[in-house]
Amino acid sequence: MSTQPGQNSSRNRLHIAVDAMGGDAGPEVTIPGVALFLDQAADDVDISLFGDKTQIQPHMASLQAQAHRVTVHHTAETVAMDEKPAQAIRRRETSMALAIKAVKEKTAAVAVSAGNTGALMAVAKLGLRTMPGIDRPAICASWPSPEGMGAVLDVGANVECSAEQLVEFAIMGEAFHRAVHGKAKPTVGLLNIGTEDVKGHDEIKRAAKLIRDCGLDMDFRGFVEGDGISLGHTDVIVTDGFTGNVALKTAEGAARLIAHYVREAYSESVASKMAAVASMGVLKRIKERLDPSRVNGGVFLGLNGVVVKSHGGTDAKGFAAALTVANQMAHSQFADEIAKNLNRLEDVRGLPTESVM
Amino acid sequence: MSTQPGQNSSRNRLHIAVDAMGGDAGPEVTIPGVALFLDQAADDVDISLFGDKTQIQPHMASLQAQAHRVTVHHTAETVAMDEKPAQAIRRRETSMALAIKAVKEKTAAVAVSAGNTGALMAVAKLGLRTMPGIDRPAICASWPSPEGMGAVLDVGANVECSAEQLVEFAIMGEAFHRAVHGKAKPTVGLLNIGTEDVKGHDEIKRAAKLIRDCGLDMDFRGFVEGDGISLGHTDVIVTDGFTGNVALKTAEGAARLIAHYVREAYSESVASKMAAVASMGVLKRIKERLDPSRVNGGVFLGLNGVVVKSHGGTDAKGFAAALTVANQMAHSQFADEIAKNLNRLEDVRGLPTESVM
Repeated sequence: MSTQPGQNSSRNRLHIAVDAMGGDAGPEVTIPGVALFLDQAADDVDISLFGDKTQIQPHMASLQAQAHRVTVHHTAETVAMDEKPAQAIRRRETSMALAIKAVKEKTAAVAVSAGNTGALMAVAKLGLRTMPGIDRPAICASWPSPEGMGAVLDVGANVECSAEQLVEFAIMGEAFHRAVHGKAKPTVGLLNIGTEDVKGHDEIKRAAKLIRDCGLDMDFRGFVEGDGISLGHTDVIVTDGFTGNVALKTAEGAARLIAHYVREAYSESVASKMAAVASMGVLKRIKERLDPSRVNGGVFLGLNGVVVKSHGGTDAKGFAAALTVANQMAHSQFADEIAKNLNRLEDVRGLPTESVM
Repeated sequence: MSTQPGQNSSRNRLHIAVDAMGGDAGPEVTIPGVALFLDQAADDVDISLFGDKTQIQPHMASLQAQAHRVTVHHTAETVAMDEKPAQAIRRRETSMALAIKAVKEKTAAVAVSAGNTGALMAVAKLGLRTMPGIDRPAICASWPSPEGMGAVLDVGANVECSAEQLVEFAIMGEAFHRAVHGKAKPTVGLLNIGTEDVKGHDEIKRAAKLIRDCGLDMDFRGFVEGDGISLGHTDVIVTDGFTGNVALKTAEGAARLIAHYVREAYSESVASKMAAVASMGVLKRIKERLDPSRVNGGVFLGLNGVVVKSHGGTDAKGFAAALTVANQMAHSQFADEIAKNLNRLEDVRGLPTESVM
């Protein structure tokens, strides 16, 4: 197999490394996803596809006119959706590991996989290592609101987080939001169970104080409650991976419950069924807005290279959305911006604890 | 003032002590709420209303034919919505404290207040003390799902919880669900970020093992993820007060976001506005199902007496819903059931730690 992605392209083109085998459906979804993405992406980006060519080949036709922008790098090894992280990291020739390796070797700007989260995080950490000044990577999710798109992190990489880690997440999340959503000065909040200073865990209170004290170049708004995430008054919501994961999945569950109520109400009677027909266009638009694939792509932040995790059960449209996020990250000054604020944090860390507390 | 509620009623009638002054609107909401509740409640329950009679009097007319079931107990003192718990517990003659006192003295079966949560919990703990065998009380919320109504606890009383506390919450939540929702054998799950045994905090893993090992009379289903709450596959969801509060508020926020999308989609064009007219009845039913007042009433569990906390910003319908929950609790064998399972837990606690771990 080749490890020289984009060998047919000019040097200043951008490459996205794609684990073609990841996700519940593998190439059946990832390759049509690549096709959808390339159809709407600028012409400066190409795809390096890692995976089993016998399984990839049947789906290459979906690329149509975009086929020249895709290079296939064969490997027969794949990471199973239920494979333990400890096992996955031992196998260096999986489609997942090779996609990460392409980022490490800078033959790709970013990697995308719909493979299992635990394995992908372990493989990415081993391959890319954490950024200087970052203790642990975090998974950042995009969250819709009436104000546009917010960012929530961590949504699952770290069950418990220190105040210092939360501050690192704030720095990374703020840079991520600017990179992907283009707002010059995103607002940042810490997820808590009240907005008063006395509420919450010690680590959250300490994190708030740290952010305020160390003069970060950041529009920090203090504590945000759970309902504040969807209200969108704050662009970046920082939390530990346990709380963030529960919040994300709870919101998904609530959305499904409401969709259930809507279906039920519209099929209750002849009159309501007629109303459903009249509302067909409207209901379709609502459904599109609630479509989880629209905001697909948890981004691993804090590694020496960006990795985007697509939902394992996504469809082609959702996989294309993950590729779009990856592309935005690849075009951004994300790493430089984080480094700038991390330096400010390091200055404070150097001080004796008393002066921080 | 009188501290003998229900002095005009026969001995086997049930009394609910109501803090008439609690909530953002006070008697303007609580008394019409009492009226709505009494209109549909069985005739075996009366209301003891605690508060400032000059403020109560103007609203008594809303009771109409039910006025004979309501006794007013005057006190001029009230707990402010932003009053610190430490301050609230020092004032023994507030409408809140007197409602709790009525439960303590068994002149009322249960107390209801829309006052501030922190103050109410502090006053209730001081007045009623925790049940034998219970370390800390919890706040239990009702949560709608396609399967009916679930119970989630703790949603805010305890920021951090030990494994033993989580097991106590499981026992209390299960008894609560049976008391209020009438299912003979509610299923119980622990909120976590995955369903595998290796996932989550140590305390959660220890709690799961404790429940399994100590032979509780409980249908325990292991770990449940955030989206599982609204799916309703598990009746009782147990978590610490930080995570539970974030989950509850996040779901409320998600519901509001979706309502926003629906409004937006139905007002986009002339055609969508016409569809909205055709859907008026359906949309009204959906709105009713999502109405937070329908599930109003966080219940304080684990004290020597039941206290129901209504949402501070509720309307009369919501306050009536809180009274209904209180009434169901008062009619149940809640305390006896908890005691039964707590005894089993005590047996295990007596063993050396090794045999539990």
